[in-house]
Amino acid sequence: MALKIAPSILSADFANLATDVAKIEGVGDLIHVDVMDGHFVPNLAFGPQVVAALRPLTKLPLEVHLMVENPESFIPSFVQAGADTILVHAESTHHIYRVVQMIQEAGVKAGVVLNPGTPIEMVRSVLHIVDEVLIMTVNPGFGGQKFLPDMLSKVNHLAQNRDTTANGDYAIEVDGGVNADTIGQCADAGADIFVAGSFVFDSADPAAQIQRLRGLVE
Amino acid sequence: MALKIAPSILSADFANLATDVAKIEGVGDLIHVDVMDGHFVPNLAFGPQVVAALRPLTKLPLEVHLMVENPESFIPSFVQAGADTILVHAESTHHIYRVVQMIQEAGVKAGVVLNPGTPIEMVRSVLHIVDEVLIMTVNPGFGGQKFLPDMLSKVNHLAQNRDTTANGDYAIEVDGGVNADTIGQCADAGADIFVAGSFVFDSADPAAQIQRLRGLVE
Amino acid sequence: MALKIAPSILSADFANLATDVAKIEGVGDLIHVDVMDGHFVPNLAFGPQVVAALRPLTKLPLEVHLMVENPESFIPSFVQAGADTILVHAESTHHIYRVVQMIQEAGVKAGVVLNPGTPIEMVRSVLHIVDEVLIMTVNPGFGGQKFLPDMLSKVNHLAQNRDTTANGDYAIEVDGGVNADTIGQCADAGADIFVAGSFVFDSADPAAQIQRLRGLVE
Amino acid sequence: MALKIAPSILSADFANLATDVAKIEGVGDLIHVDVMDGHFVPNLAFGPQVVAALRPLTKLPLEVHLMVENPESFIPSFVQAGADTILVHAESTHHIYRVVQMIQEAGVKAGVVLNPGTPIEMVRSVLHIVDEVLIMTVNPGFGGQKFLPDMLSKVNHLAQNRDTTANGDYAIEVDGGVNADTIGQCADAGADIFVAGSFVFDSADPAAQIQRLRGLVE
Amino acid sequence: MALKIAPSILSADFANLATDVAKIEGVGDLIHVDVMDGHFVPNLAFGPQVVAALRPLTKLPLEVHLMVENPESFIPSFVQAGADTILVHAESTHHIYRVVQMIQEAGVKAGVVLNPGTPIEMVRSVLHIVDEVLIMTVNPGFGGQKFLPDMLSKVNHLAQNRDTTANGDYAIEVDGGVNADTIGQCADAGADIFVAGSFVFDSADPAAQIQRLRGLVE
Amino acid sequence: MALKIAPSILSADFANLATDVAKIEGVGDLIHVDVMDGHFVPNLAFGPQVVAALRPLTKLPLEVHLMVENPESFIPSFVQAGADTILVHAESTHHIYRVVQMIQEAGVKAGVVLNPGTPIEMVRSVLHIVDEVLIMTVNPGFGGQKFLPDMLSKVNHLAQNRDTTANGDYAIEVDGGVNADTIGQCADAGADIFVAGSFVFDSADPAAQIQRLRGLVE
Repeated sequence: MALKIAPSILSADFANLATDVAKIEGVGDLIHVDVMDGHFVPNLAFGPQVVAALRPLTKLPLEVHLMVENPESFIPSFVQAGADTILVHAESTHHIYRVVQMIQEAGVKAGVVLNPGTPIEMVRSVLHIVDEVLIMTVNPGFGGQKFLPDMLSKVNHLAQNRDTTANGDYAIEVDGGVNADTIGQCADAGADIFVAGSFVFDSADPAAQIQRLRGLVE
Repeated sequence: MALKIAPSILSADFANLATDVAKIEGVGDLIHVDVMDGHFVPNLAFGPQVVAALRPLTKLPLEVHLMVENPESFIPSFVQAGADTILVHAESTHHIYRVVQMIQEAGVKAGVVLNPGTPIEMVRSVLHIVDEVLIMTVNPGFGGQKFLPDMLSKVNHLAQNRDTTANGDYAIEVDGGVNADTIGQCADAGADIFVAGSFVFDSADPAAQIQRLRGLVE
Repeated sequence: MALKIAPSILSADFANLATDVAKIEGVGDLIHVDVMDGHFVPNLAFGPQVVAALRPLTKLPLEVHLMVENPESFIPSFVQAGADTILVHAESTHHIYRVVQMIQEAGVKAGVVLNPGTPIEMVRSVLHIVDEVLIMTVNPGFGGQKFLPDMLSKVNHLAQNRDTTANGDYAIEVDGGVNADTIGQCADAGADIFVAGSFVFDSADPAAQIQRLRGLVE
Repeated sequence: MALKIAPSILSADFANLATDVAKIEGVGDLIHVDVMDGHFVPNLAFGPQVVAALRPLTKLPLEVHLMVENPESFIPSFVQAGADTILVHAESTHHIYRVVQMIQEAGVKAGVVLNPGTPIEMVRSVLHIVDEVLIMTVNPGFGGQKFLPDMLSKVNHLAQNRDTTANGDYAIEVDGGVNADTIGQCADAGADIFVAGSFVFDSADPAAQIQRLRGLVE
Repeated sequence: MALKIAPSILSADFANLATDVAKIEGVGDLIHVDVMDGHFVPNLAFGPQVVAALRPLTKLPLEVHLMVENPESFIPSFVQAGADTILVHAESTHHIYRVVQMIQEAGVKAGVVLNPGTPIEMVRSVLHIVDEVLIMTVNPGFGGQKFLPDMLSKVNHLAQNRDTTANGDYAIEVDGGVNADTIGQCADAGADIFVAGSFVFDSADPAAQIQRLRGLVE
Repeated sequence: MALKIAPSILSADFANLATDVAKIEGVGDLIHVDVMDGHFVPNLAFGPQVVAALRPLTKLPLEVHLMVENPESFIPSFVQAGADTILVHAESTHHIYRVVQMIQEAGVKAGVVLNPGTPIEMVRSVLHIVDEVLIMTVNPGFGGQKFLPDMLSKVNHLAQNRDTTANGDYAIEVDGGVNADTIGQCADAGADIFVAGSFVFDSADPAAQIQRLRGLVE
C-alpha cells in the first residue's frame, strides 16, 4: 500500500480552519478529523458541521475518527456531511460488526480503533471486513501525551496477519505523537497511514513538515 | 438593563470563524457559543479549543451555552479557555446550585437554561444567585425548529419576578428563532439579551443585521 | 368530553391477544398498550410488533403508554406500527416539549404521564399542547399495587385548569387500580378516560365488565 | 449431541402465540424466546409474562435469549416464569461468570451469546461452566439482516475446543438467517441447535418447515 | 415536635467509630449516617456493614441518608442492617412515591431530601406520606462548603405547609454547616432535627457540643 | 518474589478498624482495602477517608482495590489519602492503559484486576507496565461466594508469561476464598500475594491466622 500522511485538524487553528486546510491541500494525503464528545474521552471537538464546512474546500479525503459513546447515533450525520472514512473505537460499542456494516452500506470506508490498553484480539472478528485499523499511539483525548513505542507490536502483529493470512486487507494507521523522531519506527512496524497533528500545524510551513515526514518513510 | 444582541457562532462559517467574528466585532454585544455533546442534544459542536481560539480575536464577551450531560466536568476547561459567562441547563444536573457556585467562584458569570418543556419552577431555588436565565424559544440541538411564542410567558414571569420581588437580579435571555419578526415580542415580554444565529450569519452583512435587530428593540 | 373505558392488554392473555381483543371489540373505547423496557420500570412488555399485530384486528384506537428510558428512540417504530396515541412519562426525557411535537408531527395524538410522586408542575409548560394527561394511580411496573386515592387531587387540579383557564384542552386519564370500587371517585375528580386491566380481563366476560364500569360513570 | 431445531417465536403471530406454538408442538425441539429491551438492541419484545403464558401450553423447553442491558436484574423473573435455559450476551455484563452461576443455581441451564463482532476469546473463562454457547449469525435486533457465513469459523473453533480439550461440554447454537440454504453449513461447522424464525413461521405449515430443516442436518 | 440533635458520623474517626459513637450515646438524639456512592455525589462512604456494626453499639436510632444513584437497589440491605430511618434524594429517582412506600412497608421511617438547587415543589406529591423532609444547607458530597442561609426559606415553607394545611405531618431536618452560629436561625425557621458533624466530632468533648447546640434551640 | 499475606479489612470490625489493624501490624505484609460503589458491584464500602484514617495507624502498605464504575474519578482522592497501590478492574474502564499511567505518575503502584469471567487476554496490552495483576477467585461484591479453583489456570498463565518472556514484571495476587485449605494451590499456581479476609479477622487471633497462612506457602 502507498504510505499516506494524514494531518489532523485537531492541531490546526480552530478559528481559521479553511486557511490551515489550504496550507496542506495537495500535500497531505487525507485529513484526519477528531470527533470527541467529552464522555468517551475528556475533550469535546468537531461535529458534523465542521466536516460539511471542510468538504467543499478540499479534494482530500476526510477521515472522521469518532471518539464518542454510542457511535451508532453519530454515523448518519457524518455520512451526510461528506465523510470518506469513519473510524469507530472497538471499546465504544457492543455491535462493532453492525457498525462497520452500517458505515460501508452508506458507501463510506469503515475502520476500527484500539486504545493503547485494548488488545488486537478485541477486533479479531471484524478484521476481515474493515478497510482500516487505527492503533492509538497515545491515550486519546488527554493532553500532553507522549508517543508509546510499545504500541508498535500491535502494528507489527496486524501487518503480519494481513500479509500472511487471508484474514483481512486493511490499511494500518497510527495516531498520536507521530513526528520526525517516531514515524520511522511506525513505518518499520508496518503502518501505512500516519496521523500527524502538532508536528504539522505548529510549524510555519505545514506542507514542508508533511513532505519531511513523507521523506522519512518512503 | 441595556438590551444586548448576541450573535451565535453556531450559524457562522465553521471553516472561517475568525472572519465571521470580525464581521460582528464592535457591533454585537457578546458572542454566544453553543456547546453540544451529542448526548444531551442530538448534535455535537464547539469544545474549549474554539473558545480559546476566539478569545484573542475579539473584545466581545464569550458566552458558553453548555448543552451537555454531566456539565460539572466541562466547566474547568471552558473557564480556562476564557469564557466570560457559562450557562448550564437545569435539566442536565442534580446539583444546579453547586454548579452555579462553581462557575462564579472561578470568576465567571453563571446562568441557567430552560428547555421549552421545563417550567420555571425548576430553577426557583437558584434565581436569587444566577447572573442570567436563558429561556429556549426552540428545542435545542434539533434542526429546523420554529420560534415558540408560547415561551414568552416564561420571559414575562421572570421579568415580573425580578422587578417586583427581591428574588433575583438576573438578565433574561432568549435563544432560538430570534429574527426581525420575533425580536419585538421577546423584548416586550421582558427579555434583555437576544441570541441570533442564522438571521445574522446567513446574511451578506451580519453587522447590518445586528443593527437592524437592535433598532427593533431599542 | 365523552367518558371512555380503556382496557389494558397488559392484563390480557399474552398467548391469545387476538382472542382477548375480540372480546372487547365494539365495547371498549380504545386499547391501552403498556410498553415497558425493564429499566424505567422493573418489567418488560409489548414492543411495536404487538401494536402492528393488533392493528388489523380491531377498529379501536391503540394507545401506547411508553414506560421506557430514552423514549425518543422508540417513537418512530410505534408510529409506524399504527399507534393512535403515544403517551410519554415526564420523568423519562429532558425534552418533553420536543417529544410531544415529534409525536404530533407524525399525525399521532400525544400525551404526558406523571408517576405518583411527580407533581403536575413538571408538565406545566406542555399542558397547552398535549392531547392528553395520564395520572398514574399506582406506581407503574411494580406488581401488587393498590389504587392511590390521593392522586385524585391531581386529576381535580388538571380538570380545573382545563375548564377555567385557556391553558390546555386535554383529556384526563387515570391508570392503575381502576375497578368498580374506584372508578366513581375518578370520574368525580374529573377523569375522562379510565384504564382498566385485571378488572376487565380477569373476568369471564370482559365486555360485561366494561359495561359495568361505563354504567358507574355515565 | 442430538441436533435440535429451535423455532423462534419472534417470527410467530404476536396476537396468536398459542396457535403458532401449537403448530410446532411435538415437532420442534425447543422454543427460542427473544427478549429485547430497546437499549442493548434497537427493538423491544417479550417479557416474563410471555414465558409464563407459554409455559402451560407446551412441553417443549423454553429458551430465553436476553438481549438486554443489566441482565442480572431480569434473571429472577424469567426463572420464575418457567424458563428452561437462559442465554446472556457476553457484551452485556462485567460479571458473566457470576451470571452463569446465578442462573444455574436457580436450576436453569445457562448459556452465553456472542455478537458477530465479539471474539470467542471474550468467553474463554466461562466455556468450562456453560451449558451452551450461542453464536449470532446476524446482528441481533436490527431488521433485514442476512446470514453471515464468516461466523461459522467461530462455530468450528468452539466445536474443536469442546471435542479436543477438557475445556467445556456445551451445546453450540446458531441464531440468525438459518434456513434451508444455510443450515447445512452450520451443521458442518459443528452447530447442535439451530434457531429458525421466519423460515418456520412465515410458512403455512411450520411443522413441515421444521421437518425439512431436520432432514437437511441429520 | 421535640427538637433533636443528630450527630453525623461522617465527621467521626473512621478508624474508631465505636469510640466516637460511645461519646455521644445518651446525649445525641439519633445518629446520621451519610451513604455516598461516588456518583450521585463526588465522595464515597458508609455502606450497610457500617450500619450493621453500629447497630448493637448504640440505642440511638440510626438514620441513613442515601446520596446514591439508583437508591431502590440500596434500600433492602440498609433495612436489613438495622436502619431506623432511610432518607432518599428526590433528584435520584423517578419513582419517589414508590421508594417511600417501599421503605415504610419494611417498617422503617422514610424521608426525602432536597439539594440546595431543588425546589420544594419537586416533593409536593409525597409530602403527605413522608415521615421527614431533609433540607440540605450545603451542597452534599463536596468538601469545604459553607452554610447556606437562603435555604431556610424552604424550611419555613415546609413548616407553614405542615402546620397550616392537612398536607403532611413530617419532621423537618437540616444538614450542612450546622453549628452554634447557625442552629438558632434553623430552629427559628422551623427545623426539628439538626444534623451536626464537624462541630460535634472535631471537638474534644462531642457530648458537650451536642448539649451546647441543644441549649441554643430549646 | 517474596510471598505476601494481605489481610482484607472488608472482614474487619467496621466500628473498630484501628483495633483490628493493630492486631495484624507487623504480621501481615500489607492491608487490602476493598472500595465498592454499589454499582460496579452490589455492595458499598470504604471511601478515601478510611484510607486516610488508617494511614497514620500502620506502617503496612495500603492497597486500594477499586470495584467502581468510572475509576478515573476516584484515583486522585485515594492517592491523596495515602494509598501505596491502586488496583483497577479491567472491565471498569475503556482507558486501562491511561489509568495505569495516571496512578504511576502519582507515585503509586498500579495493578489490574480480572473478574472470574474475564480472560487474561483483556489485559494483554498492559501486562508490561503494571506492578501487579489481581486474579479474583470469587465474584466480587456478592456474598457467600466459594473459592473458584478454576481461576488458578489464569494465575499459572500469568506466572509463565512473566517468567518466560520479557512481557511483564508484575506481582500476582489472588483474592477471594483464600484460607488454609486453598492457599497452597494458589501458591503452587504461582501467586505471590494472598488476600485473606474472614479467615484472618473472624478469628480471635488474626496474627496467628496470618502466620498459619504464611507457614503453608513458605
